Amino acid sequence: MVEKEISQAVIARLPRYFRYLGELKDEGVERISSQELSRIMNVTASQIRQDFNNFGGFGQQGYGYNVEFLYTEIGKILGIDKTHQLIIVGAGNLGQALANYMNFERRGFIITGIFDINPELYGKTIRGIQVRPMEEMKDFIKENNVDIAVLTIPKSAALTVSCQLVEVGIKAIWNFAHVDLQVPPQVQVENVHLSDSLMRLSYMINRFESGKK
Amino acid sequence: MVEKEISQAVIARLPRYFRYLGELKDEGVERISSQELSRIMNVTASQIRQDFNNFGGFGQQGYGYNVEFLYTEIGKILGIDKTHQLIIVGAGNLGQALANYMNFERRGFIITGIFDINPELYGKTIRGIQVRPMEEMKDFIKENNVDIAVLTIPKSAALTVSCQLVEVGIKAIWNFAHVDLQVPPQVQVENVHLSDSLMRLSYMINRFESGKK
Repeated sequence: MVEKEISQAVIARLPRYFRYLGELKDEGVERISSQELSRIMNVTASQIRQDFNNFGGFGQQGYGYNVEFLYTEIGKILGIDKTHQLIIVGAGNLGQALANYMNFERRGFIITGIFDINPELYGKTIRGIQVRPMEEMKDFIKENNVDIAVLTIPKSAALTVSCQLVEVGIKAIWNFAHVDLQVPPQVQVENVHLSDSLMRLSYMINRFESGKK
Repeated sequence: MVEKEISQAVIARLPRYFRYLGELKDEGVERISSQELSRIMNVTASQIRQDFNNFGGFGQQGYGYNVEFLYTEIGKILGIDKTHQLIIVGAGNLGQALANYMNFERRGFIITGIFDINPELYGKTIRGIQVRPMEEMKDFIKENNVDIAVLTIPKSAALTVSCQLVEVGIKAIWNFAHVDLQVPPQVQVENVHLSDSLMRLSYMINRFESGKK
């Protein structure tokens, strides 16, 4: 099936559907109507049907959706029916926190290496994964078929490292550095700019308080 | 000035403007045209002008924008001309990583307390901030005018804790727990669902590879 171009907004919602369907599956629910799904997810049933129609609709609506089937299909669309090899670049607090997070592996994201420029960290292991020198990163990526690099380094280093990653053919960068990367179109980038997120929260507080006056 | 309702998309872009303007300010740039800003930020000049028009336009476009003024004004809109008191709920890896992140303080987000249910962590300090028992959280919030709670706890605990936070009058929750919180409209919530973000990245890889075949 050739998929038509899917809007960013729909894509942004897919992981949330996947999460709710996973919970329903774990609870042993076999079928669910768009109305029930609408109620627990707090979106309209018509929104759900529209979103699912982007992917062919996922089965009859009269009977409701088959939870297991829907979960599997959305998982395939999200590409998490395959395994991804990750490395973490930057073994600071955030890098270590992510390395320690088991749930990513449950979804098939396997952390295979951690890299840092600080020699004091070399040989240290985080959940059994060894911290290695940055100089070894490029060879490691090639030898271990790494497809995703997680950048948890300061923004001053992020541009240089992203060039190295592009050079060695990385497929995707999960970027926590507080800078926008310039990469060619074959490299996918997802930014997690925590400061930006915190500022949006601050904006919402401010707007709410202004509204009260 | 009574602001009209600003779209979510504009709000999402404000922190990015603020970040670029801060860098220009640090480099000593005094004025910038929407064309120059457009080039470095990789958005259209007309997008920039439209976004700024939501807030009255920020000065003459012929001369370009005054960087310092624009930075300050966007900072005010984002509410970061004021100081915010934060607590971190959950002193695990991610909570500790956030507690160690100095840049939030530069923006006026002051971490005043860290809470956990694990007695082994009580009394431990992270960057001088003591880890306290969860039972003390509600009183601490009231006594220290805490306005933002950062939730870095498992999703099984997040709903209970969010109820306690709402009860004690928290203004905002920065939610890293992988669950959607149900809170009344006076409580602002910003979610950072890391697994969702990683799945979007996986989707982008998958879509790119399907396109190649």
